[in-house]
Amino acid sequence: MQHWRVYAPPGTYLRQANAQLHSDRRSEILDAARRCFSRTGFHQTSMQQICADAGMSPGNVYRYFPSKEAIIAGIAERDRAEVAAQLASAQFTTDFFTSFAALARHHFVERTAEEVGLCAEIMSESRRNPTISKIMNEFDADVKDRLVTMLSSAQARGDISREADIGTAVEMLMVIADGVWWRRAVDPNFNAEAVLPMFLDITKYMLLERGKERELERSADPDRVRAMRAGEE
Amino acid sequence: MQHWRVYAPPGTYLRQANAQLHSDRRSEILDAARRCFSRTGFHQTSMQQICADAGMSPGNVYRYFPSKEAIIAGIAERDRAEVAAQLASAQFTTDFFTSFAALARHHFVERTAEEVGLCAEIMSESRRNPTISKIMNEFDADVKDRLVTMLSSAQARGDISREADIGTAVEMLMVIADGVWWRRAVDPNFNAEAVLPMFLDITKYMLLERGKERELERSADPDRVRAMRAGEE
Repeated sequence: MQHWRVYAPPGTYLRQANAQLHSDRRSEILDAARRCFSRTGFHQTSMQQICADAGMSPGNVYRYFPSKEAIIAGIAERDRAEVAAQLASAQFTTDFFTSFAALARHHFVERTAEEVGLCAEIMSESRRNPTISKIMNEFDADVKDRLVTMLSSAQARGDISREADIGTAVEMLMVIADGVWWRRAVDPNFNAEAVLPMFLDITKYMLLERGKERELERSADPDRVRAMRAGEE
Repeated sequence: MQHWRVYAPPGTYLRQANAQLHSDRRSEILDAARRCFSRTGFHQTSMQQICADAGMSPGNVYRYFPSKEAIIAGIAERDRAEVAAQLASAQFTTDFFTSFAALARHHFVERTAEEVGLCAEIMSESRRNPTISKIMNEFDADVKDRLVTMLSSAQARGDISREADIGTAVEMLMVIADGVWWRRAVDPNFNAEAVLPMFLDITKYMLLERGKERELERSADPDRVRAMRAGEE
């Protein structure tokens, strides 16, 4: 990178340093807000508390985010980029269900209690805060689209049944993901790890077996039906 | 019942009328509280609002319930009795999965937006209110026990696979039920009816197919494996 220095116009290093500082500060505020919201609740957390947790003056924090809603939008934007990267990377491996299992473990087990708690707070708040509701529903719609894209390309590659009902399967995956996170958010005895094998089997059922069954129902050829029932197809 | 009147000791009618009035009043307060909590949120609803909605004086309401937590305990107790009756009645029909489908439709689709909203409020509040958390976790443990009992007797009757992992299946059913209710609570476009067939297929998979697969794995007899794979067992 050394040679690049020659071509950098005056002020470049300062602008880069400023941009990095801006990005770091944003990130610090979002992290502080996540801690506060998750611990105290979105509604009960004040901007003052977030400033104190971030170790920044209110004037400084307000320059980045004018409201708690703007902070939630910032967190959603950051999470969305992360989810997008994860789902995109899962498409480029050879064994679809192994990749899917890793994604599921990450989302169900490895995501922190703080992330799970924040999500619970956002969902609750969205019930009577239209701004939060809009952010959350757009986030969900985005994840849903990405899951549909991921499963559709797996279907095109032949990794999942060509008859699988991808739309409903994605809806069900999102329902189960919400349910697992809510269990984690409210029940200290809930063990997400313990339901993971069942979840993966259900996913395979939705994307492989149930598709085959649907195909079977449509098929009028008794020989083919017999062959599929015997698991030879 | 007329002849019974002869044996009734003095004061019986008055006591009966009082007990009925007491029970009606309790019920009215619980209904009013459910409306208020679901609309305004548990945390943001005051006892005064509940009194106003019930059309009763604070003195009168406090005689029945000293706090919002006591009201939630009352609602949980009433719901628990209803769930118990529903699950118990489902055991006495001939076709298990038809009964189960009716239960699922009732719980996913027919329960009102107000009931769903109240549940969301209780779950949220339970995250930092130990009294509510205790009521909710006892309620969940009770439902879980009843589901395990229901499925165990279905297993004893041969309606579900003898190898089905009932504990994990119940855990997953409760995760999905939570997920469906949260979707209903936060997403006006969510259609619980549309995921019902997939949910019922998943349930059958967990209680029939997956059990067979587990049995298959344990089996050392290749003829039996072949016969089961062909769906002849």
